[in-house]
Amino acid sequence: MRLCHVSYVCAALRVNGYPCKPAENVTADDFFYGGLASAADVYGGGNPMGSVVTVADVERLPGLNTLGVSMSRVDYAPWGGTNPPHSHQHATEILFVAEGTLQVGFVTTSGRHITRAVPKGGLFVFPRGMMHYERSVGEAPAVAISAFDSQLPGTQRLGEAMFGAAPGVPTDVLARALQTDGGVVESIRAKFQPK
Amino acid sequence: MRLCHVSYVCAALRVNGYPCKPAENVTADDFFYGGLASAADVYGGGNPMGSVVTVADVERLPGLNTLGVSMSRVDYAPWGGTNPPHSHQHATEILFVAEGTLQVGFVTTSGRHITRAVPKGGLFVFPRGMMHYERSVGEAPAVAISAFDSQLPGTQRLGEAMFGAAPGVPTDVLARALQTDGGVVESIRAKFQPK
Amino acid sequence: MRLCHVSYVCAALRVNGYPCKPAENVTADDFFYGGLASAADVYGGGNPMGSVVTVADVERLPGLNTLGVSMSRVDYAPWGGTNPPHSHQHATEILFVAEGTLQVGFVTTSGRHITRAVPKGGLFVFPRGMMHYERSVGEAPAVAISAFDSQLPGTQRLGEAMFGAAPGVPTDVLARALQTDGGVVESIRAKFQPK
Amino acid sequence: MRLCHVSYVCAALRVNGYPCKPAENVTADDFFYGGLASAADVYGGGNPMGSVVTVADVERLPGLNTLGVSMSRVDYAPWGGTNPPHSHQHATEILFVAEGTLQVGFVTTSGRHITRAVPKGGLFVFPRGMMHYERSVGEAPAVAISAFDSQLPGTQRLGEAMFGAAPGVPTDVLARALQTDGGVVESIRAKFQPK
Amino acid sequence: MRLCHVSYVCAALRVNGYPCKPAENVTADDFFYGGLASAADVYGGGNPMGSVVTVADVERLPGLNTLGVSMSRVDYAPWGGTNPPHSHQHATEILFVAEGTLQVGFVTTSGRHITRAVPKGGLFVFPRGMMHYERSVGEAPAVAISAFDSQLPGTQRLGEAMFGAAPGVPTDVLARALQTDGGVVESIRAKFQPK
Amino acid sequence: MRLCHVSYVCAALRVNGYPCKPAENVTADDFFYGGLASAADVYGGGNPMGSVVTVADVERLPGLNTLGVSMSRVDYAPWGGTNPPHSHQHATEILFVAEGTLQVGFVTTSGRHITRAVPKGGLFVFPRGMMHYERSVGEAPAVAISAFDSQLPGTQRLGEAMFGAAPGVPTDVLARALQTDGGVVESIRAKFQPK
Repeated sequence: MRLCHVSYVCAALRVNGYPCKPAENVTADDFFYGGLASAADVYGGGNPMGSVVTVADVERLPGLNTLGVSMSRVDYAPWGGTNPPHSHQHATEILFVAEGTLQVGFVTTSGRHITRAVPKGGLFVFPRGMMHYERSVGEAPAVAISAFDSQLPGTQRLGEAMFGAAPGVPTDVLARALQTDGGVVESIRAKFQPK
Repeated sequence: MRLCHVSYVCAALRVNGYPCKPAENVTADDFFYGGLASAADVYGGGNPMGSVVTVADVERLPGLNTLGVSMSRVDYAPWGGTNPPHSHQHATEILFVAEGTLQVGFVTTSGRHITRAVPKGGLFVFPRGMMHYERSVGEAPAVAISAFDSQLPGTQRLGEAMFGAAPGVPTDVLARALQTDGGVVESIRAKFQPK
Repeated sequence: MRLCHVSYVCAALRVNGYPCKPAENVTADDFFYGGLASAADVYGGGNPMGSVVTVADVERLPGLNTLGVSMSRVDYAPWGGTNPPHSHQHATEILFVAEGTLQVGFVTTSGRHITRAVPKGGLFVFPRGMMHYERSVGEAPAVAISAFDSQLPGTQRLGEAMFGAAPGVPTDVLARALQTDGGVVESIRAKFQPK
Repeated sequence: MRLCHVSYVCAALRVNGYPCKPAENVTADDFFYGGLASAADVYGGGNPMGSVVTVADVERLPGLNTLGVSMSRVDYAPWGGTNPPHSHQHATEILFVAEGTLQVGFVTTSGRHITRAVPKGGLFVFPRGMMHYERSVGEAPAVAISAFDSQLPGTQRLGEAMFGAAPGVPTDVLARALQTDGGVVESIRAKFQPK
Repeated sequence: MRLCHVSYVCAALRVNGYPCKPAENVTADDFFYGGLASAADVYGGGNPMGSVVTVADVERLPGLNTLGVSMSRVDYAPWGGTNPPHSHQHATEILFVAEGTLQVGFVTTSGRHITRAVPKGGLFVFPRGMMHYERSVGEAPAVAISAFDSQLPGTQRLGEAMFGAAPGVPTDVLARALQTDGGVVESIRAKFQPK
Repeated sequence: MRLCHVSYVCAALRVNGYPCKPAENVTADDFFYGGLASAADVYGGGNPMGSVVTVADVERLPGLNTLGVSMSRVDYAPWGGTNPPHSHQHATEILFVAEGTLQVGFVTTSGRHITRAVPKGGLFVFPRGMMHYERSVGEAPAVAISAFDSQLPGTQRLGEAMFGAAPGVPTDVLARALQTDGGVVESIRAKFQPK
């Protein structure tokens, strides 16, 4: 069930993939989300990245419908916990480092790698659609709070898009993309479990 | 001086109040802001609100130009530190409570007051243009990290807009707005120092 | 019941909080509204403002759906009839003075009060989201025809948002906003009848 | 010279074909236009249409820059004064009949002619880009006040676009468009004076 | 039946005149269209224009829903096959000449006729909402592939809008528009068959 | 030098990273591009992909400024010429197969690989920001004409973004992204020549 409370919002933004909730049934809880409060287990579940992304987008908080924003919490293991290279189709990301220190980077369309360390309390911006990543470079676990100018930013991890898609992307396409051979492609693909 | 680094951003978003910085001169520092790291002094300067808003918008971080997002930190004194009723002309706000507990609220165009407490780690959303406020309701200082889907959200505090504008809004207009008399209006206005 | 006639409009603007009316059932009446033709009674109903706003938005004229415009008529009593300080969340307003003379004003986010008299036949513009007001300053009743770049501009009167919301905004929040005390707040609030 | 007053507007809307005026130099006159106050001479200048359109767009009122609205006044001679078939590339039009009675119409992309009479005080909407027209059908001169959801709506009269362009559109193209022969095309074109 | 496959697309673009197809039912065929592969019969059906437009918009390819693009193929008879003057309400057109040579043109709002020949392999751009046309000027049939920045561009042919609408646009309105007399208008109208 | 011809376009779209060309200096050549007419050399220059993309965006055709569209031609060697996995930050792509047969595919954010063969004359759509690719699967060279709903779509090839950026993306970040080890990363990176 999706809702779009406050009828003027639905109407004025004139929109909707999601059905609206009648304005008179809306409560403050429709605009609240508590799921970012706790640290995620960055070591559990055979997690190979050392990071966990917890999402508060319109699919979890229906009240975001038509409002054009969403938020995520990322937990990182110390020394190397990594949110691997990915892009958001529909949003710029503005990331605030709540705990620890991150090294962050994005790559421009002309191939420049824009990177630096961001200490606790610092913020960094990843322009819409650009490949970017973060990894923890401190002794303590790191936590980021990221916001997006979309209620559903869309996330595509590059490794998973190439090697984890189902059915598989043809081996020779990936070999050309990485300028390598089919054996390397298949050895990498073997680690990814298609969803 | 304003800049718009990374030429594809300027061009693709096709835009600009602010002049662009040539792409080859752009560095990672153009996308970084450290000014939200420290707590502001919520007691200083005769501050009557018990809160301080520290802003990271395109005027402070020129690299936000064309990117459609910005961020603020709000510090609140314990028990009652208040970010008074205001609205943002150009953005929805998504607020994350980093420390303490806030009571937050907004008023819809049909006059409903949507309000609740938001504990540490919770988030709340204020739809674009709606009057809203927050106040600390815990024993410790509170801190919020807010994000906006605009590089320059625009903020208008209702009290200051009515009573602190220069030249002054006519007394009888304010008296009608508040359904009171001119004496009350003038006594309130005396506390506001026109900018 | 809402309608969105003319199927290419629905489809091309790709949108809808409101269900569409099949194109073949659309008539010219779907694009017509007669409700702004007559003067409203600016003295009736215990009206404390001396003004009445008559609205032609998508809620009254469903044919505006997806079209991005709407209109209002405002009638003002002579000498002081006031459309009190308010803002529109989703639209700029362009106001044409059809009868009489108005003093109009808006307050910028930096606290400047931009104000002047607008005679019959003059027009004035209120930028999106800014607090603004008009009052009659002539001997005859005044009439304004206002247009908006939204089918549902959204209106929030500052006095009513602060003092007329239900449940009530906390007294101390309003006291801080106006830099006054709770007694003044309560005496003002007593005049507002919660909806 | 163009101006964009009030710096937050420029910046927040992040935009500009027109240079900005520094915020501190802005006055209320930048948001005011008096040029729609008087009736135009619908009989003068060999005017073959019996109507005159007076425009308040960003080219006449630079303060409209970035604000997304504009307005026009149309004066019509009694009994047949006609604003001939035209379209606006960038805006929906919402027309208010201030004096007299108009017959108005637009043609949809599926070839339906949506038409009716609009008496004094009525309003009618012409969807973006659709061919539409108005003509006076009363004994007194008519006046319309039209608003647009664009600061520069763009107007193209169909007759002038086909027959008055310079250099001329090829005769055979027009003959095919009207399913007529070159002689008819040339006889029509002879009446249009290329600009 | 309309579909909007791939749920993130529906949701993120937050939109819809058309109902969505559940993401799990989407196939590659939803994004494919084969209907532009063959030449149309430019001589058949009493076609007076010597051209045929074959459309791949959201009404034929529902998978375009929310994606903001569409495409057309135009076939032209040699020496004079003409796509007569028309405009698209919701899109700029970028036209690629796949076969033959076209003379193309559009008319600006200030009455300039921008025209040139476009050989095979060349492209030309028609700005949104402007009246434009193409005709074949070579010995072989011509073919154009046109793309639009809208899933449903909307097309209005000027001749048909004026003379082929039903019910008919008043004769005197058209006579004024073309600065001609009613007899000429009626003789042209007689060739158009109302839909 | 950039230009934005036809002043109403500049003004109405109200925008510009690129300076405008005065309307009176505009010619039809400003809207024409001939650079897509010839096949590119898909074997030259040590090209490892067997494909060449020729671009007609606002950087090559300044007249596209503010118009929201652009086009590309892609030439593919027979049997395997590949436009490797990439994404466009700012545009949906609609691809028309002018010669040969392509196998095309994109990967959704939920990891589905949407793929099929597209014969000559067929079209296929790649939603905004999604990773996609094409490769020739026929005996003859293939040619695609692609259009975009942006004047500057922005292209990021996944292989180059990960392995060809300068300075290099950290080895361990890439190793985690591909769930492989540093040796494999370095052996792949060795083939990429940083720009």
